[in-house]
Amino acid sequence: MAVEEAELVVPAHEHEEHPKHQKLVIIAWSGDLDKVWPQMILASTGAAMGMQTTIFFTFWGLFSLVKDDVHITGENWMQKMLAMMDRPGMEHLKLGKMNFAGAGPAMMKKLAKEHNVASPGELLEMARELGANLVPCQMTMDLMGLKREDMIDGLGEPVGATAMLMEAQDAITLFI
Amino acid sequence: MAVEEAELVVPAHEHEEHPKHQKLVIIAWSGDLDKVWPQMILASTGAAMGMQTTIFFTFWGLFSLVKDDVHITGENWMQKMLAMMDRPGMEHLKLGKMNFAGAGPAMMKKLAKEHNVASPGELLEMARELGANLVPCQMTMDLMGLKREDMIDGLGEPVGATAMLMEAQDAITLFI
Amino acid sequence: MAVEEAELVVPAHEHEEHPKHQKLVIIAWSGDLDKVWPQMILASTGAAMGMQTTIFFTFWGLFSLVKDDVHITGENWMQKMLAMMDRPGMEHLKLGKMNFAGAGPAMMKKLAKEHNVASPGELLEMARELGANLVPCQMTMDLMGLKREDMIDGLGEPVGATAMLMEAQDAITLFI
Repeated sequence: MAVEEAELVVPAHEHEEHPKHQKLVIIAWSGDLDKVWPQMILASTGAAMGMQTTIFFTFWGLFSLVKDDVHITGENWMQKMLAMMDRPGMEHLKLGKMNFAGAGPAMMKKLAKEHNVASPGELLEMARELGANLVPCQMTMDLMGLKREDMIDGLGEPVGATAMLMEAQDAITLFI
Repeated sequence: MAVEEAELVVPAHEHEEHPKHQKLVIIAWSGDLDKVWPQMILASTGAAMGMQTTIFFTFWGLFSLVKDDVHITGENWMQKMLAMMDRPGMEHLKLGKMNFAGAGPAMMKKLAKEHNVASPGELLEMARELGANLVPCQMTMDLMGLKREDMIDGLGEPVGATAMLMEAQDAITLFI
Repeated sequence: MAVEEAELVVPAHEHEEHPKHQKLVIIAWSGDLDKVWPQMILASTGAAMGMQTTIFFTFWGLFSLVKDDVHITGENWMQKMLAMMDRPGMEHLKLGKMNFAGAGPAMMKKLAKEHNVASPGELLEMARELGANLVPCQMTMDLMGLKREDMIDGLGEPVGATAMLMEAQDAITLFI
């Protein structure tokens, strides 16, 4: 993403502050655009501030990591149905609160672009480049019938709730 | 619940780690199945890790604790109406994001069962047995016209927001 | 608001306890009545307990701060449309989970009043009087085309995600 966009979110003069909390854990549960946005804004901001940042993608949030062209092939009709509900990938996020018959997300994205606010996909990529650890939830992957190759590159090893809670020790931890 | 199911959520080899944060507080606000699940997975996992775990059931989350056969008898029609909206109890949770004309929760529960993921009710029971403190919100009980005998056994004393925030001191605290 | 109402939420005998965590940060993301209520109850309770309390109003939550009589005049039709979706201000909040064809919020407010639970607007005012810092999100203001004069009095300077995460260091931080 363009540097100008990143700077709107993370003003340069604030980079120098040294937070006492060295860790930020975002439990990315929702797959709605208006929740994915704060997930990504907070994670990329935390990473830019030098915090040890982890995003734990679980439940609907996991769909943010699924490749656009993945054809889900769970071993039973339920997994297919469940997996198909949402067309996965960052480009197809829906807006939780309102949808304007489908126009909402496009409108909000256009609005954000005009104001130089980075898109969720750009922020995810920025967070990763800044060192944030993107971790899929193993249990959700199993439930949804998703494999590592179904998901975008650059992810950490899938983990469970225990590993996530260990990472949350002494961290700022947010369920979004 | 069966031991095999619990182990899927809390792998045996992770039991031995000693978290620095000794406390976990789940503010269980939602009564939707797809939120109750993470509430219960995180609480039972935290309790299994030896964390001092508290679930504070408030707003819609309180319905998870109401007995299946309770006939709400608030002193006015509004309480009845409000209380009746949701058929209470863990067995009747609805799915927040999608419902497939009522088929969603059954489908997700079947899917979870096939993958040996414990149900919310099983996880709640497991959390309680592992020592988690299940605390109803006093204000919500008053608003909904619910009494102690309307709720399942094994709960702690109802408390308010102040006691909850005291418990949240030095804890990992999640609003779900 | 009446003192009697405040005391239901914050019992007098609990005022004396001294929390170790001196800070509470509420990320007020939602604008739904059933989420604004816990935002305000927790913030006013934290402030009453002597905690350094900050409410960061972002996304839909920002609408809680917009004056009742504001006529949004963004520079383009999209901002107008986005801003108009919700009739702003604390008095027009909708209920996330159910609406009873518009009767839900009125019913819940009446119910709360009968039980001496303060309204969100009263709790916001109480939180402010008790010293809570009410901070609007600068990015959301920009996106929605909102200016300082569109919002109620007594707010802190608008800030971004970095300042919010700095404030969250060593705080109890909740995304609601």
